[in-house]
Amino acid sequence: MFFEGSEKKVEIIVGPDTNLLEVPKDFWSQMVAFAGAKILSQISNENCTAYLLSESSLFVWKDHLTMITCGNTTLVKAVKFFTNQFKADSLEAVVYERKNEYFPHLQTTNFFSDIKVLKNSVKGSSYRFGQPDEHHLMLFEMDKAYTPSSEDVTFELLMYNLQGEAKEVLNSPGHTIEQVRELLRFDEIFPGFAVDDYLFQPCGYSLNALKGRFYYTVHVTPEEVGSYVSFETNVDINETVEHQLSHILEIFKPESFDVIWFRPDDGLPDLSVAHYVSRNRYQQRLTSGYTVTYSSHFMEAEKYLPATRLEGLQS
Amino acid sequence: MFFEGSEKKVEIIVGPDTNLLEVPKDFWSQMVAFAGAKILSQISNENCTAYLLSESSLFVWKDHLTMITCGNTTLVKAVKFFTNQFKADSLEAVVYERKNEYFPHLQTTNFFSDIKVLKNSVKGSSYRFGQPDEHHLMLFEMDKAYTPSSEDVTFELLMYNLQGEAKEVLNSPGHTIEQVRELLRFDEIFPGFAVDDYLFQPCGYSLNALKGRFYYTVHVTPEEVGSYVSFETNVDINETVEHQLSHILEIFKPESFDVIWFRPDDGLPDLSVAHYVSRNRYQQRLTSGYTVTYSSHFMEAEKYLPATRLEGLQS
Repeated sequence: MFFEGSEKKVEIIVGPDTNLLEVPKDFWSQMVAFAGAKILSQISNENCTAYLLSESSLFVWKDHLTMITCGNTTLVKAVKFFTNQFKADSLEAVVYERKNEYFPHLQTTNFFSDIKVLKNSVKGSSYRFGQPDEHHLMLFEMDKAYTPSSEDVTFELLMYNLQGEAKEVLNSPGHTIEQVRELLRFDEIFPGFAVDDYLFQPCGYSLNALKGRFYYTVHVTPEEVGSYVSFETNVDINETVEHQLSHILEIFKPESFDVIWFRPDDGLPDLSVAHYVSRNRYQQRLTSGYTVTYSSHFMEAEKYLPATRLEGLQS
Repeated sequence: MFFEGSEKKVEIIVGPDTNLLEVPKDFWSQMVAFAGAKILSQISNENCTAYLLSESSLFVWKDHLTMITCGNTTLVKAVKFFTNQFKADSLEAVVYERKNEYFPHLQTTNFFSDIKVLKNSVKGSSYRFGQPDEHHLMLFEMDKAYTPSSEDVTFELLMYNLQGEAKEVLNSPGHTIEQVRELLRFDEIFPGFAVDDYLFQPCGYSLNALKGRFYYTVHVTPEEVGSYVSFETNVDINETVEHQLSHILEIFKPESFDVIWFRPDDGLPDLSVAHYVSRNRYQQRLTSGYTVTYSSHFMEAEKYLPATRLEGLQS
């Protein structure tokens, strides 16, 4: 049995006449249900409410939301539910992303079918960052000019095929949430955040964290086949990225990682990391005013490994 | 519209009581039709008949066959047709391979569903060479000990995302088969072979070549999205691989390439090639006596590229 860690994600920005923080929780519960997920818990402050979902996370601010779902979820149906309530002319920006999946043959929709649905309510354009045979990002944005504030950044770090102690701990029978927290030590690189985390059975870990308008979120699917961790934040770590990247990569020791970076400027981030080779790098300015940088990095193969013998049929 | 270049492949070895060269062409036509392909032309000598197919190739020797099909073909149905006629106890070896596809969401079957079908007539084991999120090879073999001869080697070279002149020529309107032959110059590295080649409309090129019991075959799908070339031979090029590899890679200039090598010994081939980094390397001894080496290589990314804007919906 495979679990698809790779996420679908949507960010929606609404106009000044709308306050998403006033929308009742029941609406978000319904929206999440359309994706095939449910709300497990929540934390909030005056800027943001962070819902921890059975499949990833939903963050709601006054003027925008970010929803991330993994597994075989139907995020596009949740977006459709939202745009039925909040019509296109009340929206400032819509960005829908879908990372290519580990196990695409197990997905019930694909990016192209998702976009056919989205285009019924939102006019927009699609991009592919990367070649179809490599790690790549599919992205749809509403065709509407928008000017993000100078602080409006999002940093996404996707890590594939974990190695070492973290993978062992995260797959060990009966491991506790305290063990996982001790392993991650995210408070060392993001101090002062309120944290809401959840340990799934038999494995899997999700974390939402809030501090003022800032968030970070971590989702771990440590399964032997297709192990994966995503990290995301709107803290602008451009100046200190090497510090954060090193901390996170040293914990999970992934064979490869991708970075997706939304910035209002088009600076080229320095993502050189010891032991990793850069496989591809893409940068694109969007109509919505963001510059999106996508790059993929992996450890060079130094030796021959045995093939994986597939017991049973595992599909 | 995408065309899936990545191939499915089967090799079947029969016992001494069977002579596959005596099987009438009508049988092979039917078998090929089960895969969703048809025979376009053929060449033969006393050792082998090589059929050029609408989707790749079928080679038949006295004691074994190799069938390769690309696109959205159902090779597994062709294998089933064969094993209905030639029962499992008349078979010495069956190896079924499926490279992960460029566009898996467009395939009507996947490796796991194929194996469910195969296992009804052939008991066997499955392997995955590589991680599911990277280029990888799925392989099934019949569980039966077999001793390949010391000369029984197969070298497969899969090339992704072509660049430079070759891609231009191969996509130019009205290009001729003579232009493609002039581009490839395979006779320089494999002299003295009888050649049967075919230019598809509007693009695409296939080539079968025979010399005694030896073959090589080339299949080119040069489309803008998902451009791909496969090369395969049973000539043992171990000593001269650098020469052949360089020739072929210099023609197609792929962003990445994979090598699959079946050998009766377990020597580790040296696949270091200038400008390419090794992404992964796997080696596995099979019950059927072959040692399979799979490795994947690509050009390091040196600069940022723009994303690809997807016009229309292209699925």
